[in-house]
Amino acid sequence: MDFSFSEYAVQVQDLLRRFMASEVLPRNNDWHRTAAAGEYPLAVIEPLKARARELGLWNLFLPELREDEPGTAMSNLDYAPLAEIMGRLPWAAEVFNCSAPDTGNMELLHRFADAEQYRRWLRPQLEGEIRSCFAMSEPDVASSDATNIGTTFRRDGDHYVIDGRKWFITGAAHPRCAFAVVLGRCDDGPDGDRHRQHSLLIVPMNTPCLTVERNIPIFQHHSPEGHCELVFRGVRVPVDHRLGAPGEGFAMAQARLGPGRVHHCMRTIGQCELALEMMCERALERRVFGKALSEHENVKDWIAESRLEIDQARLLVLHAAWLMDRHGNAAARTQVSAIKLVAARLQTRVVDRAIQIFGAMGLSPDTPLAYLYTWGRALRFMDGPDEVHLRTVARAELKKAREHRGDTAAYFTL
Amino acid sequence: MDFSFSEYAVQVQDLLRRFMASEVLPRNNDWHRTAAAGEYPLAVIEPLKARARELGLWNLFLPELREDEPGTAMSNLDYAPLAEIMGRLPWAAEVFNCSAPDTGNMELLHRFADAEQYRRWLRPQLEGEIRSCFAMSEPDVASSDATNIGTTFRRDGDHYVIDGRKWFITGAAHPRCAFAVVLGRCDDGPDGDRHRQHSLLIVPMNTPCLTVERNIPIFQHHSPEGHCELVFRGVRVPVDHRLGAPGEGFAMAQARLGPGRVHHCMRTIGQCELALEMMCERALERRVFGKALSEHENVKDWIAESRLEIDQARLLVLHAAWLMDRHGNAAARTQVSAIKLVAARLQTRVVDRAIQIFGAMGLSPDTPLAYLYTWGRALRFMDGPDEVHLRTVARAELKKAREHRGDTAAYFTL
Amino acid sequence: MDFSFSEYAVQVQDLLRRFMASEVLPRNNDWHRTAAAGEYPLAVIEPLKARARELGLWNLFLPELREDEPGTAMSNLDYAPLAEIMGRLPWAAEVFNCSAPDTGNMELLHRFADAEQYRRWLRPQLEGEIRSCFAMSEPDVASSDATNIGTTFRRDGDHYVIDGRKWFITGAAHPRCAFAVVLGRCDDGPDGDRHRQHSLLIVPMNTPCLTVERNIPIFQHHSPEGHCELVFRGVRVPVDHRLGAPGEGFAMAQARLGPGRVHHCMRTIGQCELALEMMCERALERRVFGKALSEHENVKDWIAESRLEIDQARLLVLHAAWLMDRHGNAAARTQVSAIKLVAARLQTRVVDRAIQIFGAMGLSPDTPLAYLYTWGRALRFMDGPDEVHLRTVARAELKKAREHRGDTAAYFTL
Amino acid sequence: MDFSFSEYAVQVQDLLRRFMASEVLPRNNDWHRTAAAGEYPLAVIEPLKARARELGLWNLFLPELREDEPGTAMSNLDYAPLAEIMGRLPWAAEVFNCSAPDTGNMELLHRFADAEQYRRWLRPQLEGEIRSCFAMSEPDVASSDATNIGTTFRRDGDHYVIDGRKWFITGAAHPRCAFAVVLGRCDDGPDGDRHRQHSLLIVPMNTPCLTVERNIPIFQHHSPEGHCELVFRGVRVPVDHRLGAPGEGFAMAQARLGPGRVHHCMRTIGQCELALEMMCERALERRVFGKALSEHENVKDWIAESRLEIDQARLLVLHAAWLMDRHGNAAARTQVSAIKLVAARLQTRVVDRAIQIFGAMGLSPDTPLAYLYTWGRALRFMDGPDEVHLRTVARAELKKAREHRGDTAAYFTL
Repeated sequence: MDFSFSEYAVQVQDLLRRFMASEVLPRNNDWHRTAAAGEYPLAVIEPLKARARELGLWNLFLPELREDEPGTAMSNLDYAPLAEIMGRLPWAAEVFNCSAPDTGNMELLHRFADAEQYRRWLRPQLEGEIRSCFAMSEPDVASSDATNIGTTFRRDGDHYVIDGRKWFITGAAHPRCAFAVVLGRCDDGPDGDRHRQHSLLIVPMNTPCLTVERNIPIFQHHSPEGHCELVFRGVRVPVDHRLGAPGEGFAMAQARLGPGRVHHCMRTIGQCELALEMMCERALERRVFGKALSEHENVKDWIAESRLEIDQARLLVLHAAWLMDRHGNAAARTQVSAIKLVAARLQTRVVDRAIQIFGAMGLSPDTPLAYLYTWGRALRFMDGPDEVHLRTVARAELKKAREHRGDTAAYFTL
Repeated sequence: MDFSFSEYAVQVQDLLRRFMASEVLPRNNDWHRTAAAGEYPLAVIEPLKARARELGLWNLFLPELREDEPGTAMSNLDYAPLAEIMGRLPWAAEVFNCSAPDTGNMELLHRFADAEQYRRWLRPQLEGEIRSCFAMSEPDVASSDATNIGTTFRRDGDHYVIDGRKWFITGAAHPRCAFAVVLGRCDDGPDGDRHRQHSLLIVPMNTPCLTVERNIPIFQHHSPEGHCELVFRGVRVPVDHRLGAPGEGFAMAQARLGPGRVHHCMRTIGQCELALEMMCERALERRVFGKALSEHENVKDWIAESRLEIDQARLLVLHAAWLMDRHGNAAARTQVSAIKLVAARLQTRVVDRAIQIFGAMGLSPDTPLAYLYTWGRALRFMDGPDEVHLRTVARAELKKAREHRGDTAAYFTL
Repeated sequence: MDFSFSEYAVQVQDLLRRFMASEVLPRNNDWHRTAAAGEYPLAVIEPLKARARELGLWNLFLPELREDEPGTAMSNLDYAPLAEIMGRLPWAAEVFNCSAPDTGNMELLHRFADAEQYRRWLRPQLEGEIRSCFAMSEPDVASSDATNIGTTFRRDGDHYVIDGRKWFITGAAHPRCAFAVVLGRCDDGPDGDRHRQHSLLIVPMNTPCLTVERNIPIFQHHSPEGHCELVFRGVRVPVDHRLGAPGEGFAMAQARLGPGRVHHCMRTIGQCELALEMMCERALERRVFGKALSEHENVKDWIAESRLEIDQARLLVLHAAWLMDRHGNAAARTQVSAIKLVAARLQTRVVDRAIQIFGAMGLSPDTPLAYLYTWGRALRFMDGPDEVHLRTVARAELKKAREHRGDTAAYFTL
Repeated sequence: MDFSFSEYAVQVQDLLRRFMASEVLPRNNDWHRTAAAGEYPLAVIEPLKARARELGLWNLFLPELREDEPGTAMSNLDYAPLAEIMGRLPWAAEVFNCSAPDTGNMELLHRFADAEQYRRWLRPQLEGEIRSCFAMSEPDVASSDATNIGTTFRRDGDHYVIDGRKWFITGAAHPRCAFAVVLGRCDDGPDGDRHRQHSLLIVPMNTPCLTVERNIPIFQHHSPEGHCELVFRGVRVPVDHRLGAPGEGFAMAQARLGPGRVHHCMRTIGQCELALEMMCERALERRVFGKALSEHENVKDWIAESRLEIDQARLLVLHAAWLMDRHGNAAARTQVSAIKLVAARLQTRVVDRAIQIFGAMGLSPDTPLAYLYTWGRALRFMDGPDEVHLRTVARAELKKAREHRGDTAAYFTL
């Protein structure tokens, strides 16, 4: 296990850190003010994007880029601290064309798009001209068991007809959102295997009969890019909008989740670090019962526990990233489930302590804590609920045990 | 310990339960739709108030009412299940003139108002004509140590001049909010004792130089009645607006918190019961991995743990109420701190499990869970942060130990 | 819910408390010294038994006694604080003829013994002349699912032939242990129902072919009365040693567990109170980093949390006892599972904090803490593992939900 | 961060693993039988030591060995997995001359012994001929604050006279224990600084007036090597038995704790892995309510949570070891506190789950779980209680925060 960052990555970390401080953070209030007024803050974002791209702080999430593609390729390991830095400010990733769910979609298209799909959908995304969303979750079935998906893709000549309802589709309210990658049950897949009954279709957002019914607030937070409910009522798209072969949708969707989950985790670690820093600063300033909060043992305990938990979670994330770089995304599947679990639960725990130290102010929008707390809770569903990932980790462990069964007998005293 | 409810109280419980089901709940969607449109839902509330009052479901929170006062007096114990029933729907208490922070203010005025104050402020509140708020927390000092309060009451002839900033003042945005009870540091109190340097003033909301600067959202939730930031810039009120004697403010504020805290706890229990009911209903309906959620052991564990925790918390609340009825509010001070701690922490725990069972829907405004979760977190500051109450409980325990010191020696084996 | 103790019970509490202080505790060191030397401390116990019986502190656990039976009958509620007082010293219950598992066996025989069984086995137990054990758990099957029991009772004329292995049989090493009540699978029960394939037999400990193979230490603790492994190799007992009808063993065993579980819980509460008292005393005495432990916030938090948890658990136990008195043991089944869960888990939590405050001394045999900690962990299996009781509580909750399904719909906002 | 093991270390891991399986584990029952009979199992240990030394599996814990010293030097990082393998069997480390507290003492003497001390005490230890103990904790003062130490070293000509009482001195009952390194308050140190008032003396165990009063059982476990109470009543040792200069004892004791703590943590990880393996094996075998335990969701959750926690803890330990190798023990002080906290608390958590899966058998001596559970609890005091390490971690974090104060302001929205 070698978690050393490349020399180049360390330089990019430094550059990114300075860019965040000098260019991005000074626009934070403007971003929030614009968003609060109900407008997507493109006026804040677009000039920053141009500047970031000039500096090479662009498309950092892709381990490999073709020669003519814009941006700077980074290994998963090298990307980790960059995602952490961006993650501290929830809206910052877009500046670097590294936002969810676009990074996952770009990875997906990078692997599976044909030439025309590449030209029409991926290329403009890599250029930062359009954005996209990924439509999988549905209100009527448990998203933890993706084979239940109810949306149907009915083949009708050289078109598919889509019927169904999707929700919590992140990014669908972004003014530049140009297409959705939609998972549905197809009627032209191979017979038999219940994991090969789904396809992925690229559906332009302006296709007739596709409506964005609402932007669902998450814990009362109206995200400007949206977590939307989409309705497909007989939506027709040409057959060439299908990614890969019929019935391969589920497998591609699974593949997509790997790196995307890791990015979420890295950003989460960054948010936890921010919360810990804020906690410490506040504890040093605020006095109660005759001494600074930082001199109260229970406050010190919260600080120490947070440090212990963050450091452990970060190491686990780095390990998963290293494993993906070295042995491929598939080999790291259990580890990705592991970090997904650890990171999502970490956030509410650390932010909860920070809020307690800030007092009622921690509930207000004056600090990022209130948002981070609710977002952290939401993360326990993003990319699959905790329970699904616990199953995955347990299954891997029991598989090992099955192979070594009986090895511990020598430790018994009988 | 006798936690039996009076026969009369059991009838009122039944009446209240039926009224909630037949009259209040059917207006729930209207209430939310109106509030979402930025208007206080008086049109929903006022007819319900009239009807509730006719049925005697009015001012149920006061253990004693004078003959000519409207409503139905209930002991703290008898009130507990009523508050629980109302608490299930966060906006319902107003229908019965039992809302926070008004119940606390009415208790306070009931005990300390002079005749003119009674006539002008308390009577219309008991009639449900006006509402009020209680202004204690300040942004610049830790609210956990109330002696730090920075707002000043400077005596100027037969007026006080008020300067200061208060925040998280619940109810200040209600269209009927007529006055604030304000805690501040006075310059006409007795010398010495740092707990006798504060007074309470009744300040009409329309007093010049008093401004409601903003309604602070709590975890992104804009409450229609408000958790507001109030600024006092040389606000003048006549001396007869003072409650009690100069310097008695702190003691009165403490007394006020007793029953108010208990009411919060009772309503919280009701919300936890609702969350548990919702959790069970959903678990019975939703299927994942080939069986109902209710057949998965981890889901069953969450349900069982919630039942264990709620039942214990309710018994602790009933015990505190019984103690207040029997030995007075002061005698129950430690127990009130205890239930405050237990109830506030219970809510996020139980609601968190319910959310996990609802999946992403639990994050949306479609169920009450998202609001209850964030409100539960906020409760850990309402009426004093957890840490203050832990201190109180520990102090009482150590006091007992000091008296019995050495009693355990006989259990040692030496 | 009326948890008031009868006036008489309050007097007995007082008498018992004084007797513990003046007669029992002064013999604590002798008891331990004798037991450590490998001898059962009858010399300490017997004179105390005689004295306790004189004072009426005898057989306090039975809600009803026949006129000629020795002792003082107490309702379950009235017995609770008595069990708590005895429970503080793990060996004390025997002084009052209130030890586990004898109380459960006496209850069982009181209900189901025929005249001859009463004369031969119950009467001498009520007199404190003999003791007994209850043999249910087996090494080869999960005790959480009692229908798996493998021990067989083969009918052979007017005898049963018993084959099987039982373990963790508490009390089997006591020098006065005269008989075991054994649960086994019979071949003369009614056909069909898998809950009616077991009988209970009274097996005298000196029956040939019954051997006590070992006294199993629990976390390295060799209990003098034993948690033993018993082997039955063709053990023969006359048919009249059967309790009740063939096939009724499982039902009787279930009935037996009710009050016995409650007594365990009550004693556990007493042990937790003792641990909390010790924790406070030590925190007041011991200084670290310039101040008493009791002045450190984290120590205060541990004290407060323990008080909150103990008070809640006690109320839950009293509620279950009250329910058994009022509606019978069967009606309280879910509540008995609930307190079993809460009490067992409480002990390790509270004692763990006490140990942390005592430092390494808490690991030693100089205080009762080390024993209480490991005993607390063992309690999570006594009378059924946690998981079985969680199932019971969840099942009851889901049953309620099934009856009221849909009641929460009005709370949704759609 | 590069946690790659050297190629050589990987070979040693393999060798050690095979040696454990083929030579050590087959003697496990003999070791326990001998120890249970009250005899130190030298007859089991000594032949294994000879064999291990032949294979180079000797003194693996020292990062550097002089040319003529026996054994195989390993970096801290390379030693980690070796300690993990040894740790699985609590008595195994002695086979490789890697036992606590000897490794710490050898490190200490390696750095601070003069030539004569080296010849007389260290050399025979490196050869595995003698063992030693480290006497710091005292019954009368909180060990978490070492400056309170009460044992006195009075200078009397060319001797020191030692008076005091030490307890929980691990290894003092070993038949080969030849000397104790004792920390005491000296009267010949430099004036002033309260951290320079202590010296370390080497005291041969057979010195007159030094008595081992008892071997204190830890949670009822009588360790054959002992956790002893030692009394010094006017014990005289020559001045040349002092390690280092007068007053340097405290600093040397601190230095000693670094690597020793890391070794404890590594062994703990090994024990947790063993418990997890046992848990999985049992879950696959045992059936309850119609299916294997491994198919119950709650059991799967326990397995998954254990895997997550162990993996995180191991990475944290490797990081601390890497830091010590790279920047020295002093630079890793905070990280050593961190892993001490994490590892000690991990053990009871993981083993607790394993016990629950084993049922009552987990309480018995038939599996290693009962011992590991109580040992895990004891670890929370070994090398300093949790609270001391939490302070250390918090202090480091607050120090960083003090340097960067205000950096988070840009994240606020005002």
